[in-house]
Amino acid sequence: MEYRPGLEGIIAAETAISFLDVEGEEIVVRGYNLLDLAEHKTYVDVVGLLIDGLLPDEARRSELERSLVAGSAVPGPIWDILRALPPSMHAMDRLRTAVSALGGFDPEVDDHSPEANRRKGLRALAKVGTIVANLHHIAEGRAPKEPDSGRGYVENMLAMITGKPASPAEVQAFDRSLMVYSEHELPNSTFTARVIASTMSDLYGALTGAVASLKGPLHGGANEAVMHMMLEAGTPEGMEALILKKLAAKERIMGFGHRVYMKKMDPRAQLMKETLKTLVSASGDAEGQKWYTLGEVGEAVMRREKGLYPNLDYYAAPVYYVLGIPIELYTPIFFAARTAGLVAHVVEQHAQNRIFRPRVRYTGPRGLKP
Amino acid sequence: MEYRPGLEGIIAAETAISFLDVEGEEIVVRGYNLLDLAEHKTYVDVVGLLIDGLLPDEARRSELERSLVAGSAVPGPIWDILRALPPSMHAMDRLRTAVSALGGFDPEVDDHSPEANRRKGLRALAKVGTIVANLHHIAEGRAPKEPDSGRGYVENMLAMITGKPASPAEVQAFDRSLMVYSEHELPNSTFTARVIASTMSDLYGALTGAVASLKGPLHGGANEAVMHMMLEAGTPEGMEALILKKLAAKERIMGFGHRVYMKKMDPRAQLMKETLKTLVSASGDAEGQKWYTLGEVGEAVMRREKGLYPNLDYYAAPVYYVLGIPIELYTPIFFAARTAGLVAHVVEQHAQNRIFRPRVRYTGPRGLKP
Repeated sequence: MEYRPGLEGIIAAETAISFLDVEGEEIVVRGYNLLDLAEHKTYVDVVGLLIDGLLPDEARRSELERSLVAGSAVPGPIWDILRALPPSMHAMDRLRTAVSALGGFDPEVDDHSPEANRRKGLRALAKVGTIVANLHHIAEGRAPKEPDSGRGYVENMLAMITGKPASPAEVQAFDRSLMVYSEHELPNSTFTARVIASTMSDLYGALTGAVASLKGPLHGGANEAVMHMMLEAGTPEGMEALILKKLAAKERIMGFGHRVYMKKMDPRAQLMKETLKTLVSASGDAEGQKWYTLGEVGEAVMRREKGLYPNLDYYAAPVYYVLGIPIELYTPIFFAARTAGLVAHVVEQHAQNRIFRPRVRYTGPRGLKP
Repeated sequence: MEYRPGLEGIIAAETAISFLDVEGEEIVVRGYNLLDLAEHKTYVDVVGLLIDGLLPDEARRSELERSLVAGSAVPGPIWDILRALPPSMHAMDRLRTAVSALGGFDPEVDDHSPEANRRKGLRALAKVGTIVANLHHIAEGRAPKEPDSGRGYVENMLAMITGKPASPAEVQAFDRSLMVYSEHELPNSTFTARVIASTMSDLYGALTGAVASLKGPLHGGANEAVMHMMLEAGTPEGMEALILKKLAAKERIMGFGHRVYMKKMDPRAQLMKETLKTLVSASGDAEGQKWYTLGEVGEAVMRREKGLYPNLDYYAAPVYYVLGIPIELYTPIFFAARTAGLVAHVVEQHAQNRIFRPRVRYTGPRGLKP
């Protein structure tokens, strides 16, 4: 049998959740183009689409919003656990620990029926938003910000993160970023969640594994690496010089290319680029405009030098920076958004399960005697 | 492309660590037959073989033992975190949370070099043993038992679990069980660890994901299910009646069959069966003898009725029961033993990495408009 490192090109699951149609340049989410959804709907609609299986009507949308906000208070012991961890611990590692602990406070943790998994999924999503929004507050010794029942789920998350009210333009930009991060077929973290769920282990275990996966710099960690690179560059001219220096040193430039999209533009990157433009135009802030120009310069240099296009992380990073979000939260926010998709995959895996158990090609010695 | 549910028969990794030679009926671990190792060596030797890459000589063996015992004290905040979790939380879910938290106390957490991964692996293994041995003490409100520097790593773990000194026969039986649980090619939990590590995420994240996987009743959770079935049966006659009743009701009988071994006997099961016999003979205890006879009866009934052979979990369960180990610790002990193999796989994955990113077959609708 042929061995494909990283299972590249191997079909590992049947799914009705999403599909990257590379030829059609479309990210299909339950039949819809994700970019259409991002233009016409909100994150909470996409949550309904992913977890319920269909776009919510007005009544269901209000119910989802209400239950997400009502369920977003986090049990006190979770804060105690986060406080017991060293403040220097990577934010994703603290999030991983908190998501694991959350399972202990869900009375349906070991009920794997689709209905229970959906209920648990919404409860987990509600609380993950609050935890993510408070990772830096806890690490810096502040009391956790509480969700406000007068605000929506997405507005709450952004306001808890920054500690101040968010403008409608800011909420819309943040909401769009959550939509485009919500689901993406079978990336490493989603695959991890399905592999874990296939032992009939529980939803929280699958989510915990996904946090661990998403931390990696080859996966979710890329959005933070992009922002650090942009800050190091400092100016549009600095961006060109920095990329050329890194290319000369054969260093990897984060935020470009994607195994599945190959040499095409990630359509989510284009949407985040437009979102960044709208956001900095709305604020009229010269500093914001600088990041947009710097991003465009980097994009042009990489297309010219390597024929590579930006991926989602490349433009999500400056959007989050302009929104005033601490860099260490970029990957945790990616996870919070993706929780909706992960829940859908665990529901599907548990409902039509076959345990993942591949084989190896053994390259070691044989016949040794102890 | 052909879709194989559960990646059955697909080669997902090249490895020099281990291989299930089904035709040769041999579990190969770095060139040795695992059963030979179990007969002639100890768990700490196998730890050296897995993590260092070769069987330790006398000096290295002493050094490994010393460092495992010296490193087995657990940071105080880990106990605080375990105390903050509900005592009713599944022992594997509490272990998952503690292993995740441990990453915060390792200064080399984000160094993925083989040397750093090996050092972290030994530190993690040392502490996991102590955590596992105390999950029930913490849940029942007792102070954690401390490792005793005058005892070996394996003896310490058993004595902490039961709260009393262990006889040489008991230590040997427990040590053998750890050896046969230490490594087994690419089961779901090891695959999970490699998938997570392939994003260049850290060792503790990979181990945390493996705990989540191993909890599942289709994987590590099986050893606990076996013991509950044996206790429900109560007597050898009861075992035959219970299995026949379950088969008539088309219920799954845990502890039999294995995807890779198919219709052959798991060689580890035979070793655990012999270990159980030796253990109950040494103690001269009639109750112990009963579990051995009950196990044999169940084995004969399943061979006669279904042509299925016991797997490792089937005989490990009564060994642990006779050793006085609480049932909720059986799967955590499996994880503690397997930590050695998991560390070896993370070292190997990080050293020759390609991110796991398979594809899907999409079965949902297309062309919907929001």
